[in-house]
Amino acid sequence: MDNVFSARIDALREHMVRNGWDAVVVSGSDPHASEYPAPRWKQVEWLTGFTGEAGDVVVTRDHAGLWTDSRYFIQALNQLEGTGVELHKTRVPGAVLIPEWLGKNASVVALDGLCQSVAAVEDIKDALAAAHPDGDFRIVDVPDILERFWNDRPAVPSTPIATLDVECFGGISRLDKISWLRKWMMLEEVDGVLLTSLDEIAWLLNVRGNDIEYNPLVMSYLIVSQDYVKWFVKKTAFGAYDPDTADSFAELKMDGVDIEDYDAVYFTLADVNPGASWKLFADVATLNHHICSYVQESCPDTSFVFGKSPVILEKAVKTKSEQDNLRQTYIDDGIAVERFLYWLETEVAERGGVTEWEASERLTAFRSEIPGYRGNSFENISAYGPGAALPHYSTPQHGSAVIRSSGLYLVDSGGQYLTGTTDITRTVPMGECTMLEKEDYTLVLKGMIALSMAVFPRGTAGCQLDVLARNALWRSKRNFGHGTGHGIGYWLCVHEGPQDIRQNFNSQPILPGMVTSNEPALYREGRHGIRHENVLLCREAGANDFGDWLEFETLTCCHIDTAAVLPDLLDSSERAWLNSYNEKVFRTLSPLLSPEESVWLRNKTLPI
Amino acid sequence: MDNVFSARIDALREHMVRNGWDAVVVSGSDPHASEYPAPRWKQVEWLTGFTGEAGDVVVTRDHAGLWTDSRYFIQALNQLEGTGVELHKTRVPGAVLIPEWLGKNASVVALDGLCQSVAAVEDIKDALAAAHPDGDFRIVDVPDILERFWNDRPAVPSTPIATLDVECFGGISRLDKISWLRKWMMLEEVDGVLLTSLDEIAWLLNVRGNDIEYNPLVMSYLIVSQDYVKWFVKKTAFGAYDPDTADSFAELKMDGVDIEDYDAVYFTLADVNPGASWKLFADVATLNHHICSYVQESCPDTSFVFGKSPVILEKAVKTKSEQDNLRQTYIDDGIAVERFLYWLETEVAERGGVTEWEASERLTAFRSEIPGYRGNSFENISAYGPGAALPHYSTPQHGSAVIRSSGLYLVDSGGQYLTGTTDITRTVPMGECTMLEKEDYTLVLKGMIALSMAVFPRGTAGCQLDVLARNALWRSKRNFGHGTGHGIGYWLCVHEGPQDIRQNFNSQPILPGMVTSNEPALYREGRHGIRHENVLLCREAGANDFGDWLEFETLTCCHIDTAAVLPDLLDSSERAWLNSYNEKVFRTLSPLLSPEESVWLRNKTLPI
Repeated sequence: MDNVFSARIDALREHMVRNGWDAVVVSGSDPHASEYPAPRWKQVEWLTGFTGEAGDVVVTRDHAGLWTDSRYFIQALNQLEGTGVELHKTRVPGAVLIPEWLGKNASVVALDGLCQSVAAVEDIKDALAAAHPDGDFRIVDVPDILERFWNDRPAVPSTPIATLDVECFGGISRLDKISWLRKWMMLEEVDGVLLTSLDEIAWLLNVRGNDIEYNPLVMSYLIVSQDYVKWFVKKTAFGAYDPDTADSFAELKMDGVDIEDYDAVYFTLADVNPGASWKLFADVATLNHHICSYVQESCPDTSFVFGKSPVILEKAVKTKSEQDNLRQTYIDDGIAVERFLYWLETEVAERGGVTEWEASERLTAFRSEIPGYRGNSFENISAYGPGAALPHYSTPQHGSAVIRSSGLYLVDSGGQYLTGTTDITRTVPMGECTMLEKEDYTLVLKGMIALSMAVFPRGTAGCQLDVLARNALWRSKRNFGHGTGHGIGYWLCVHEGPQDIRQNFNSQPILPGMVTSNEPALYREGRHGIRHENVLLCREAGANDFGDWLEFETLTCCHIDTAAVLPDLLDSSERAWLNSYNEKVFRTLSPLLSPEESVWLRNKTLPI
Repeated sequence: MDNVFSARIDALREHMVRNGWDAVVVSGSDPHASEYPAPRWKQVEWLTGFTGEAGDVVVTRDHAGLWTDSRYFIQALNQLEGTGVELHKTRVPGAVLIPEWLGKNASVVALDGLCQSVAAVEDIKDALAAAHPDGDFRIVDVPDILERFWNDRPAVPSTPIATLDVECFGGISRLDKISWLRKWMMLEEVDGVLLTSLDEIAWLLNVRGNDIEYNPLVMSYLIVSQDYVKWFVKKTAFGAYDPDTADSFAELKMDGVDIEDYDAVYFTLADVNPGASWKLFADVATLNHHICSYVQESCPDTSFVFGKSPVILEKAVKTKSEQDNLRQTYIDDGIAVERFLYWLETEVAERGGVTEWEASERLTAFRSEIPGYRGNSFENISAYGPGAALPHYSTPQHGSAVIRSSGLYLVDSGGQYLTGTTDITRTVPMGECTMLEKEDYTLVLKGMIALSMAVFPRGTAGCQLDVLARNALWRSKRNFGHGTGHGIGYWLCVHEGPQDIRQNFNSQPILPGMVTSNEPALYREGRHGIRHENVLLCREAGANDFGDWLEFETLTCCHIDTAAVLPDLLDSSERAWLNSYNEKVFRTLSPLLSPEESVWLRNKTLPI
């Protein structure tokens, strides 16, 4: 029996056949290459029911497939049941990715060019060209391709805009940031920069919004030339500013930022500097295919210069003021998490159990009491026992598992604050644990500690450090299937580049001022999941004959439970690190906690 | 006052000006991209006096420069004194390499195309093109460019050729290897393969020679098509086979290998398959520019297909029979080194001192007693005290330092045997050591042990493991400026690819059967140098839910002196590894040593 999703796929397929297309690609992203799109662009979810945060769909006459990575294999198999959509695994040996698959199965490919980056479409084009050396292939750009089938499709989001004091933004005004970008443009000999990535725009303009859940962003495009700054934003629809953001707009105008309607970006691009050649810089990783082809077809005077946006690196290296704010923010966030952990332990002891959902709600409540709190930075992962074996477990509101006083509970969460973005995972021994749970818990912890203690010469990239977080696991032939660390924004996205710590080669060195997570893990399907996550700030550690040295400062301030640690598996430096970390957490937080909480934390942080 | 080298450079410069060239590039390699060239191609040494194993020279009207890496900075500064040649450092931040430098300083560049790979010349061409967008630049190929100035230039070497029993070559006959390559050619749809790299040719044909010191190679080119195998080799000069190799040639002819003169490769390439298109595979990393341009200009029917030679990987993965032979060879080699170490300690105690040179000669003498010994695999490094701080110290025959009964002595050496190639470094505490020497000794050892104990999932590359060998040093803000490990041939070159263990990104995974050195180090200029080197064989370690696991087996069988170890710096697993390694060395070698040596080794290998 067909379900709602297979009916939708059938409708799309009919449309496809009528138009003479062999395949339709539906992407999981939006016109700004956002990792987490607003509901309007949850096209993959609408079409297939798959709610994972990474996934793209291809529909042909006789096949519908979802491409996603190991974090979502189990979830995808469950959610796709009955839809007729088959799972294609990515990031596994021998994986056939969408471009290559299309090469073998299609000549005419339709896609929503708004939701595909130039780089992604180039990959598809290359694969089709390789598969059809006669040139007999075509890519059809159909913006909002699902609109005709999706009756109640949400609109482009539009929420109030905040333009706060410059101290909230690392002490650098938008005028200074714009003038930095203009200097860069002169060096690179380009006439303009088109920014499409939402966190880059928010950073450059010192603005925040709430257009995407958990991400304080404003749906918009930005063009910066030596003469003007034009911001294309939904809040000006119908020629009138949204009253909620009128003040912010006035402030921006005073700084020389012209406010235009979101869709007016096309007119402006068509109109710039007519008759003279104009070099416009854009980043193919985030520029969408639709806007790019529009410029290339309609604006003969404009030529693109493609490269990596300079904003990405500038944004990743936190200023002194941002670093100071972050230190305090992670202490504040630690208080919320410690209160939650105390509540959880007490509650489970008193009531015998608490559902994962209730725990998650309670954690959010504790966080919301922190000054400057502006929401969570991602959906809480609150997972007990086998649920924690899914790295991206989504806690169901109804019927979630009950946390009881044995085994391991995993909670991965974070907050958005005026003074930074947090991300923390703690795995909590709720009572008695098996030897395997303890072993896994300790080996993962060894990895987290090894990375925390790392010292490395300037120029070292995350992939050159990653094995430190895995070595203890590897020597026991255990591993985890995701990266060890991601960059974290400042009151921005919880995932940001350009640095990371993972096996994949990424030549970006970890630089002083960068904030990166440290989250080794272990998952045993049907049994338990363990992840220990602290957030690290890279800082200078002096220079000598052997080089210019960097190290990590741990920002996260929340104790690590030693109840599941097997002390014999730690060497003396690891044990010293753990005891000193817990002691520091106690000394920092206890004055800010209630007497009961403080006594409880004292016990939790006794040296082992 | 001008010295002999500056006079030579002046002569070259005059010739350069007369021909209208702006620059001449002189490479440190030979027509086969050999790492260690025969004397005929030590053109850099003849021109500048620099004897380091890596270095290229550029001469312009007003500048002469040598480009080399950190291993040779001190040596280069010494040897270049008075020559007017300036040192350009490579592998340092901000280094300007030869292509880029030429772009800024020349339009017409002359080079010996025989001694430059296609890839190297492409780099120069790209840099010149970028610097001269008008296309006003030229590369002039002048084979044997120094010949006119170099009166007694050595000839192309020609030594006897050995074709031994197939068991000496991993149990795979040349016919099987040729048919493997022909299958590969069919898959890759090429008509022929041109091999120019000497160790690839030696491996494929199961032949060895002695044309380059320490490297059992035969100067030659090889063309393999589906119809024939043609080997172009100096031993056929004047139409007659060298009598010393006549039997080997007869054996090769029986296997269908046509023997041609070294220089006849040009005629053959010009002559193949006239009138029909012919696709010839070659590797741009080793194919020389001269032969490549010759084919492109003179053989319109032949088109090159460039790629990475498949022989490199096939040669690096040792067969079961090669692995078995290597295990025994490293035991035999260990006996020679242990006898040497016993002799050294006894001799220094009795005579109060031994020169580095005498020690080196004595080590070679011990090695030459091992059955199957065919010479050393590189020049012994025998260095006491400050000399050891030069990673590639060259022990002078006269006036070398005297090894006495205190401080550290470093000996890096290896043998060529019918059953494999060895490479080992031991740093020997000769008596009392300073606390800094002991600390450095122990930290380097921790790195070597960590890498020895590594377990890793299939697919892991050396650059993803390298930090294991550096982490203990890095945490004390110490480092070494070279790679941790290189591949090692089988009765072939002591350095071979494609795998390595170093910071530089190299995506080649370490595979079961690969043999790689493990040699972390520490150098303190003017004080001491420490390097511990064992050789590792990668092997399978089973599969489970978390992956398919690999690990290392240590081939090297020679004790590690514990006298300079600070036990407190070792964790329990490191101490266990060290004690178990030394115990195994004792048990393996003591039955093969004299009673005195055996008693001595028992004391050296007592657990700590």
